[in-house]
Amino acid sequence: MKPLSDAVLHSKKSSIRKLFELFLKSTDAISLGIGQPDFLTPDIIMNGIRKGLDNRKTMYPPALGIQELREAVAEKFRTENKMEWVQPENIMITNGGSQAIALTFAALTNPGDEIMINSPNFLSYFYIPSYYHTNLVEIPRNTDYSLNFQELEKKVTSKTKLLIINSPNNPTGYVMTRDEIEKVVGFVLEHDLYLLSDEVYEKYLYNGRKCHSPASLGGVEDRIITINSISKTFSATGLRVGFLAAPANIIPLMEKYTQYTAAGVSHPVQYGALEGIKHGNPKMDEIIQNYDERRKYCLKRLQELELECAMPHGAFYCMPSVKKYMYSGDQFSEQLFEKQKVAVVGGDAFGSYSEDKIRISYATTKENLEKAFERIEQFIKGL
Amino acid sequence: MKPLSDAVLHSKKSSIRKLFELFLKSTDAISLGIGQPDFLTPDIIMNGIRKGLDNRKTMYPPALGIQELREAVAEKFRTENKMEWVQPENIMITNGGSQAIALTFAALTNPGDEIMINSPNFLSYFYIPSYYHTNLVEIPRNTDYSLNFQELEKKVTSKTKLLIINSPNNPTGYVMTRDEIEKVVGFVLEHDLYLLSDEVYEKYLYNGRKCHSPASLGGVEDRIITINSISKTFSATGLRVGFLAAPANIIPLMEKYTQYTAAGVSHPVQYGALEGIKHGNPKMDEIIQNYDERRKYCLKRLQELELECAMPHGAFYCMPSVKKYMYSGDQFSEQLFEKQKVAVVGGDAFGSYSEDKIRISYATTKENLEKAFERIEQFIKGL
Repeated sequence: MKPLSDAVLHSKKSSIRKLFELFLKSTDAISLGIGQPDFLTPDIIMNGIRKGLDNRKTMYPPALGIQELREAVAEKFRTENKMEWVQPENIMITNGGSQAIALTFAALTNPGDEIMINSPNFLSYFYIPSYYHTNLVEIPRNTDYSLNFQELEKKVTSKTKLLIINSPNNPTGYVMTRDEIEKVVGFVLEHDLYLLSDEVYEKYLYNGRKCHSPASLGGVEDRIITINSISKTFSATGLRVGFLAAPANIIPLMEKYTQYTAAGVSHPVQYGALEGIKHGNPKMDEIIQNYDERRKYCLKRLQELELECAMPHGAFYCMPSVKKYMYSGDQFSEQLFEKQKVAVVGGDAFGSYSEDKIRISYATTKENLEKAFERIEQFIKGL
Repeated sequence: MKPLSDAVLHSKKSSIRKLFELFLKSTDAISLGIGQPDFLTPDIIMNGIRKGLDNRKTMYPPALGIQELREAVAEKFRTENKMEWVQPENIMITNGGSQAIALTFAALTNPGDEIMINSPNFLSYFYIPSYYHTNLVEIPRNTDYSLNFQELEKKVTSKTKLLIINSPNNPTGYVMTRDEIEKVVGFVLEHDLYLLSDEVYEKYLYNGRKCHSPASLGGVEDRIITINSISKTFSATGLRVGFLAAPANIIPLMEKYTQYTAAGVSHPVQYGALEGIKHGNPKMDEIIQNYDERRKYCLKRLQELELECAMPHGAFYCMPSVKKYMYSGDQFSEQLFEKQKVAVVGGDAFGSYSEDKIRISYATTKENLEKAFERIEQFIKGL
């Protein structure tokens, strides 16, 4: 038999999904593993989809998404993200944030291009580049998880096409400051790059931090793809609706690519997303307050267990080092699940610079968190 | 600014979509253009989605699709398509047939591989190969639109990885016979190839023709990807649910690829597809009878207008030549729309061997067909 795809063969299966499968097979396990909020998808979204069904929206949607939703998303970017230049023709509706990332690679890159990313980072960013035959260049984060600009300057070449940022960040919880965002934009301009800004966790902010969209800064809108989705803000990861804002000359490339490879996003579901985007999540403040308590609880417990962890200011993750107790985060994760049935993700999933780390998601009840940390404590005591 | 994606820049925007956009802007136009059935999506599907929503299926679905649906699809392939070897682990649920095609390329191909296809054919097949940096080799169909095996033998090389068939065919309406399917399978085995069998029009058969799935033949199940979807059978193109059966070693590659580039198919919508697959389309016989009448009417009118057309035995298209009246099908299509507001698709959209042809879809009411052909007659008279 002739060989299958090299790039896909050699990419790893998501260890998060593997963990999820193990978790589902176990009866008394607690998951601090998956990146999924634990509140219910708001009724406005559910009812929007029901309305779409009642109106029999079952025929091909436009490849770029339904016009009403593109308009609502443009309005969201203008008002919430201060991206004043955005018009509906800059918007594309996607099969979740994941497809938005893939479309960015599809439209912008050619084989051999170099892609830069601060590491650790969201796991898709480590595999998608190889699917597009581009080369990923990892920039190890500073110890506080901020971007290391010196390393960035060192590693940029004439082949560099795209810089990726994801702030608030999965898996570190790091939130870039306004100053950092400005420096990123300056770097992108100086080296003639494109910038992918993944802002899916934009609502999950603590300690008074803000999410600054680089595409709100003047004079760079022809270089930035801003990615977002309803998944995290509305706890609707399974509806698979994301969206992006891009320069007007790039949207038609994404449109063509999606016409032939996906042919659009489920039509009735787009009417649910429309209600969400138009009205926002009515309970967001309450949710954030709640998540902030969990975050603080995690940090307190990590400190007590002497698991060193840079302060997370956003998203719903923290990423401590386990090197005090064990060589690798993967090992820690495997043994913790085996002995105490607590699921956390080993650092290897998030790049080459987090081997000694684990990702903890606190998108679960306080009660679960308390139980999980008790078990982690037992586990550490038994080492 | 650095260059965008070559492959995507140089692929054409779907002329069908362009036509569709023109059509939407016009008030009294008639479309014989788009590949979308004209009956309502059955209520069992709509209610299945509603049930999915009521059960709050809004969290990440498994990347391969929900287990119940994979089981129902496996059962469908075993009983309806006589693919007795198929188990749920051979099944993947996809974002329509389009994503199933893309995933096949993602999992099977490496840059430089050659892909063979009989031409004219479904338009995605002409663009997706370049997105995966593979080379498409077109095999011009015989005049009756059957596969030209001599040409196939002539053009196969050691680099050929994949042969694509789509029967019943869009755009020609051609249905491969059992004998042809057997020869295709023999060819695939002889040259150590993979075979993509796109069977989305399997229910649209006339003149007693049958759809023979190549993967029902013994000893080739490790080489065949069988693609289907709910789009055409259930008039549900906009729900974006397709599915495929593949060798068990290929499914994990597709799973990985989709984890990072799409992260699954809308969760509640899969429960609608489940009802459709489990129960079938209760009105299919009636629909086919109806479509057959339209088909016969088209053929009669084409004959009267002296537009030569090979007999279509399947799908809901016919593809006559316009060379008696005009140099190219694209020109014919453009002028017909301009002068008489009838939308048909010029042959160029379907490959390099259909320049003098147009595709007519008869997935519209008899009344519309009558009106459209009156206008076509006027148009031809005015030439």
